[in-house]
Amino acid sequence: MTNPSLPLALSAEVRAALEAGLPVVALESTIITHGMPYPQNLEAARAVEAEIRAAGATPATIAVMGGQIMVGLEDAALDALAQTPGALKLSRADLAACLVSGRTGATTVAATMICAELAGIEVFATGGIGGVHRGAELSFDISADLRELAHSRVTVVAAGAKAILDLPKTLEVLETLGVPVIAVGQDEFPAFWSRASGLPAPLRMDSAAEIAAAHRMRGLIGLPGGQLVANPVPAGDEIPLAEIMPAVEVALAEAAAQGIAAKAVTPFLLDRIFALTDGRSLTANIALVRNNARLAAAIAIELASAEK
Amino acid sequence: MTNPSLPLALSAEVRAALEAGLPVVALESTIITHGMPYPQNLEAARAVEAEIRAAGATPATIAVMGGQIMVGLEDAALDALAQTPGALKLSRADLAACLVSGRTGATTVAATMICAELAGIEVFATGGIGGVHRGAELSFDISADLRELAHSRVTVVAAGAKAILDLPKTLEVLETLGVPVIAVGQDEFPAFWSRASGLPAPLRMDSAAEIAAAHRMRGLIGLPGGQLVANPVPAGDEIPLAEIMPAVEVALAEAAAQGIAAKAVTPFLLDRIFALTDGRSLTANIALVRNNARLAAAIAIELASAEK
Amino acid sequence: MTNPSLPLALSAEVRAALEAGLPVVALESTIITHGMPYPQNLEAARAVEAEIRAAGATPATIAVMGGQIMVGLEDAALDALAQTPGALKLSRADLAACLVSGRTGATTVAATMICAELAGIEVFATGGIGGVHRGAELSFDISADLRELAHSRVTVVAAGAKAILDLPKTLEVLETLGVPVIAVGQDEFPAFWSRASGLPAPLRMDSAAEIAAAHRMRGLIGLPGGQLVANPVPAGDEIPLAEIMPAVEVALAEAAAQGIAAKAVTPFLLDRIFALTDGRSLTANIALVRNNARLAAAIAIELASAEK
Ligand SMILES: [Mn+2]
Ligand SMILES: [Mn+2]
Ligand SMILES: [Mn+2]
Repeated sequence: MTNPSLPLALSAEVRAALEAGLPVVALESTIITHGMPYPQNLEAARAVEAEIRAAGATPATIAVMGGQIMVGLEDAALDALAQTPGALKLSRADLAACLVSGRTGATTVAATMICAELAGIEVFATGGIGGVHRGAELSFDISADLRELAHSRVTVVAAGAKAILDLPKTLEVLETLGVPVIAVGQDEFPAFWSRASGLPAPLRMDSAAEIAAAHRMRGLIGLPGGQLVANPVPAGDEIPLAEIMPAVEVALAEAAAQGIAAKAVTPFLLDRIFALTDGRSLTANIALVRNNARLAAAIAIELASAEK
Repeated sequence: MTNPSLPLALSAEVRAALEAGLPVVALESTIITHGMPYPQNLEAARAVEAEIRAAGATPATIAVMGGQIMVGLEDAALDALAQTPGALKLSRADLAACLVSGRTGATTVAATMICAELAGIEVFATGGIGGVHRGAELSFDISADLRELAHSRVTVVAAGAKAILDLPKTLEVLETLGVPVIAVGQDEFPAFWSRASGLPAPLRMDSAAEIAAAHRMRGLIGLPGGQLVANPVPAGDEIPLAEIMPAVEVALAEAAAQGIAAKAVTPFLLDRIFALTDGRSLTANIALVRNNARLAAAIAIELASAEK
Repeated sequence: MTNPSLPLALSAEVRAALEAGLPVVALESTIITHGMPYPQNLEAARAVEAEIRAAGATPATIAVMGGQIMVGLEDAALDALAQTPGALKLSRADLAACLVSGRTGATTVAATMICAELAGIEVFATGGIGGVHRGAELSFDISADLRELAHSRVTVVAAGAKAILDLPKTLEVLETLGVPVIAVGQDEFPAFWSRASGLPAPLRMDSAAEIAAAHRMRGLIGLPGGQLVANPVPAGDEIPLAEIMPAVEVALAEAAAQGIAAKAVTPFLLDRIFALTDGRSLTANIALVRNNARLAAAIAIELASAEK
């Protein structure tokens, strides 16, 4: 199924599932190394994997360790990754360099898509994607995740993009890149912690079967790239837009006042929003990732059944 | 010639022409569904097809209907499309979703290029291409047509881009993307309704044979993407720059004053320019599309004769 | 090794080296036609070729002449090119058109990468790459070199990018495009005439072997595009940032005051910086290209030895 000379180490479970044509869902690992402290990160990662198994699919958490792309982390490897403080945060630009260095790296959305496609996995669940940063009209700071969606053939289930980004510009760039952006069950593009963003989604679909059919059709007509499935956070876990936006604005003002710049901005904002929402931002984050894992499993099941 | 499992329905005429290696010219369909009211849109579409036939090539109007990419519309299908008020306006991002939904969609420049390449058609005639919108330095609103020219191997004959766009930025983006921009018979990039734009074109060619040779050379050296052939509106039909620009400025000022935003801007501007020019903008539009159809047919004939 | 119908004319020396699997380094030619007056340009080109030979690799200077991509210029061809005042400056957009026209064209970084990949050459030495121009937030003027690094599988050894460009934006665009940017032997991205830029480089490597291994790994995992190897100018030849930046600022102010615009800006700035540094900018330029040629040869030797 995959080129044996590739530096690709599939777990026994993932290999068996892929060889049998069973549904597999890829998972990224920066949420483990850069998203939460230990041991909450490990617990969350295991909870997300459990959701996928409960839904009838096989989870494949992806990371780079020891010069190999690990696809599916055994328990010990997941635990080790969760305790690697200096893990790199890998994107398209530095994935190969990390492989040759032998260092440990966690995969962002972009790098996870690349590795999933190499392994033959077509669906991937995450929290939110990177996007166009606020102020990008001057900084040109735009996540490589957007362009990856135009290149790697993986359908990515996310809860939209965080409201700390510039969402209107993010949607424009996705349109320019020809990436399908599909809101699930509503007409509005969701904004990670909130179900609403005030912005219409370019496409709406209401079932995993429809999303899987559109994924297959893109492949059939030869279009590279995947789909961004924007799955709203469950209503019971959301922080409504009217509540989260003031926290975002306060955090942005603090970052500006304290001269926080460049790559330090996003972690600073997320920390402040965590504090300003009394931790609700993290609760919502975990809930939405689990929710995305369930939908991704349903899409993977549709894809696997259609291939038979 | 094409993969039989593709959702591609070639008309008998187009299939016969392609199988015989005869010249074929693709045509887009948003000009039919979103460009003019019925029945003028149908008359204009038939006139453009007639130009191509008169020039010795076969027209292939492209649209999505009933889950198929139609390449070449029989008379009844063209008439039905011309009377479908809710037709989608398809680009790279939503072409596959429309195919699986079974809805009717008209193809923009980007989607027409994708479908033409799938069908094995190398030349496509249209009016103007999408580009960088005015204010894109803040809105990031850039048409997917530009990037498509860097990806799909189709030579697109247009009369430049409308002066309601930001033409200097449009030319910069095309240069960054590595797209050949070829003015025909003059050194200046044409501006749709006007032969002049005040901007030099990166390349100039004076014959269909030269354009066809450059198209073949790009394929030979392995470059993806097509060429933008910028063919000036015939002198007798143009609205000179000095006359059209005041109308554009008035329309832009009205849009700003009335708070017209996002996807509503372009239709508003075109309506106002139609009124402000006493309908001359539409007359010029039809004339330039017919003129582009003639040149596209000549290029297709050169390509077909070289392949023998 | 290469398709015989390609318009590709390899010199006897380059052909023999490629067929034997020996190390070859591509060189661009705009530095010859647009970088210096005759005969200094010819002397510099020969000196760079001599560095590559002395290091144990074969130089392959690339240009378009007589409808062919010349890969490796014999002495007479190099001399003729160095005296062709009207040579075109070719990028991705106009390479094919120049080939069909029969005109003489020098290749920029982008076009050299395309031609090197066609010829099967994986390493290329130059001075600096194009980047995001100052003011690009309004002009959208971004060199096609950046996107080429994401598409053509060639490792490019440069001394960074000139400080007349917007270096922070250039690094952001490279990150967005997924291009590895590797500083050699230091943590900072170098700025052409200066070893320092004040900007951290995304990656650092300290040996040709490491750079070659990362190049091979990108190919192995299926990523298109190359790597930007940012090799600092030798310390003895540099113009420190504190000395060059005032000259850059003076030149920029003069350009603004004299209304220099568009494609005239870069040559104007380089001329003024030459005068303002009493010619040291040219001395540094020649030294850094020779330095890059040596490193490129070492990388090519690593790649050739690994393929055996
Ligand atoms: Mn960034
Ligand atoms: Mn748009
Ligand atoms: Mn430029």
